Amino acid sequence: LSARLATRIAQKTKPIGALGQLESLALQVGLIQQTEAPQLRAPTVLVFAGDHGITEAGVSPYPQAVTAQMVHNFLQGGAAINVFAKQHGVALQVVDSGVNAHFDAHPLLRDAKIALGTANFCHQAAMTQTQCLHAITRGAEITQSCIAQGTNLLAFGEMGIGNTSSASLLMHLFTDIPLEDCIGRGTGLDDAGLQLKQAVLSRALQHHLQNAPALSTDPMAGLATFGGFEIAMMTGAMLAAAQARAVILTDGFIATAAVLVASRLQPEVLEYCVFAHCSDESGHRAMLNYLQAKPLLSLSLRLGEGTGALLAYPLVVSAVAFLNEMASFASAGVSEKQGASHA
Amino acid sequence: LSARLATRIAQKTKPIGALGQLESLALQVGLIQQTEAPQLRAPTVLVFAGDHGITEAGVSPYPQAVTAQMVHNFLQGGAAINVFAKQHGVALQVVDSGVNAHFDAHPLLRDAKIALGTANFCHQAAMTQTQCLHAITRGAEITQSCIAQGTNLLAFGEMGIGNTSSASLLMHLFTDIPLEDCIGRGTGLDDAGLQLKQAVLSRALQHHLQNAPALSTDPMAGLATFGGFEIAMMTGAMLAAAQARAVILTDGFIATAAVLVASRLQPEVLEYCVFAHCSDESGHRAMLNYLQAKPLLSLSLRLGEGTGALLAYPLVVSAVAFLNEMASFASAGVSEKQGASHA
Repeated sequence: LSARLATRIAQKTKPIGALGQLESLALQVGLIQQTEAPQLRAPTVLVFAGDHGITEAGVSPYPQAVTAQMVHNFLQGGAAINVFAKQHGVALQVVDSGVNAHFDAHPLLRDAKIALGTANFCHQAAMTQTQCLHAITRGAEITQSCIAQGTNLLAFGEMGIGNTSSASLLMHLFTDIPLEDCIGRGTGLDDAGLQLKQAVLSRALQHHLQNAPALSTDPMAGLATFGGFEIAMMTGAMLAAAQARAVILTDGFIATAAVLVASRLQPEVLEYCVFAHCSDESGHRAMLNYLQAKPLLSLSLRLGEGTGALLAYPLVVSAVAFLNEMASFASAGVSEKQGASHA
Repeated sequence: LSARLATRIAQKTKPIGALGQLESLALQVGLIQQTEAPQLRAPTVLVFAGDHGITEAGVSPYPQAVTAQMVHNFLQGGAAINVFAKQHGVALQVVDSGVNAHFDAHPLLRDAKIALGTANFCHQAAMTQTQCLHAITRGAEITQSCIAQGTNLLAFGEMGIGNTSSASLLMHLFTDIPLEDCIGRGTGLDDAGLQLKQAVLSRALQHHLQNAPALSTDPMAGLATFGGFEIAMMTGAMLAAAQARAVILTDGFIATAAVLVASRLQPEVLEYCVFAHCSDESGHRAMLNYLQAKPLLSLSLRLGEGTGALLAYPLVVSAVAFLNEMASFASAGVSEKQGASHA
């Protein structure tokens, strides 16, 4: 199939390779769907929201309450992800994975709350192993319900004040990249804030490694120790998406950290991932390189919510569209490259 | 207005600057349209097609006939630009600027033919000064007719076997970047082909500089000497677009060369240009840097036709949409960054 897809792409009326990354993307989506004529159906963006005990330590310039406020903003349609989802006709679902607030029922909201935020991982694991497994399982169920509705492309976004701290520690744990290279300014820390964040995360890491030196070899234990509920739930949702041969369209630093954890549990998940963008959060580039991922966009975004994923989404549509709709040299009566028949 | 737009962007429910390049794009479109609430109307892609006498010298791996064949392909709807224009609801107009073939009338085709291809600039100027002026004027008229139909965003693409040779010489002439850094593989030259192209273009340059050593200081003369009809017509169309305060969405190496020439005639044109992508044609990155342009995409595209412009088009829509549709911190009841009120 891979060879048939490559031939089909090469016969389109354009110089060989002239659509660049769109060509590898078309090939990937064809392989994911196991067809020469892939179709994207009922695209959906899942925004997983959760709170983080680590915010107590002052690692974010925003108060924890902003997580819940932004969930309300998503439900009212005022956030960036609402605008981009509407623009592209992508369905939006907001998942309460563990926000420290209670929400009324709303058509866009899925209640999958594990707890009212994680514990502060300075002192103890962010969640219990049971909570972690529960979050992964709930994530998988959410994907499965989307798949049952006909979705074959899921975009992954998140909201959670403090969650770059979780993602940085997971990145360090599972890539062995020096911790300080995994830590960035998040929503906009100044130099002093960044130094504090580095000190806090470094201490938390040492604390847990003393008790569990082999933490990096146990993805579930690492995820429970440092993860957020939204990261764990995303991990489970991604694993189920790969299982269902859906396209996984990832967003920025936190969503990619979930990919990293998922790939530790099931390496094949990477074949299903389309990496939407490289964010401005320092660490994301190195994480993408570690995963050998070539992101589609690099627009200095650092918003999360799935916004980068949806900004890249039309490129996935374009990749599928050129594969299905462009004429071939033969059908259009266009001459091929001179000497091409002998090459 | 610039300050009001910046404030409006900063008050949206996201960390300051978190939408990265989309924020500067929103600001630019607002300034182009001179409003805090810009709107994109009747977006149109103009694909200028022309033939080049220099193809006699073997500078392209494709025969000259492919230009006309691809025009037919555009009219029949089978090319990449057709697929992307349809995807994004962008109107397509194909302009015969000087193809070496005659076409029947077609709703998508504008007949603006200056001649049946340019002369081979190895021996003489590609076109006369009269032809050059004629092409620029016709380009401006085409833009004006689009503007009269309500268009306020024009994307610019081209088709012309041999036209990377023209663009390379124009780039060298007007940037003073060493000629060899301006020359690339075009539609896919091999090493021997690239060496031949370099030798041919170097000789042509020397030939014309002997007769007119100050060619680089005279944009019209330089354009007439090395330009294609499609490049000259695009130049005129871009100048008229800036005049009408329309957004100019540029494509790859050749369209950017037209921007370069246009900016030599009228520097303010750059304020109206959104640079869609950095192509795989070597030289394009340096040309964009010279223009201090930050392209939106970098997907190793090298197809032309306006395909890169249309792949970036939804990002322009997103920039305008977030500016108009996102809630502010105040309207959504979301807390701002801690200390922000004191900053």
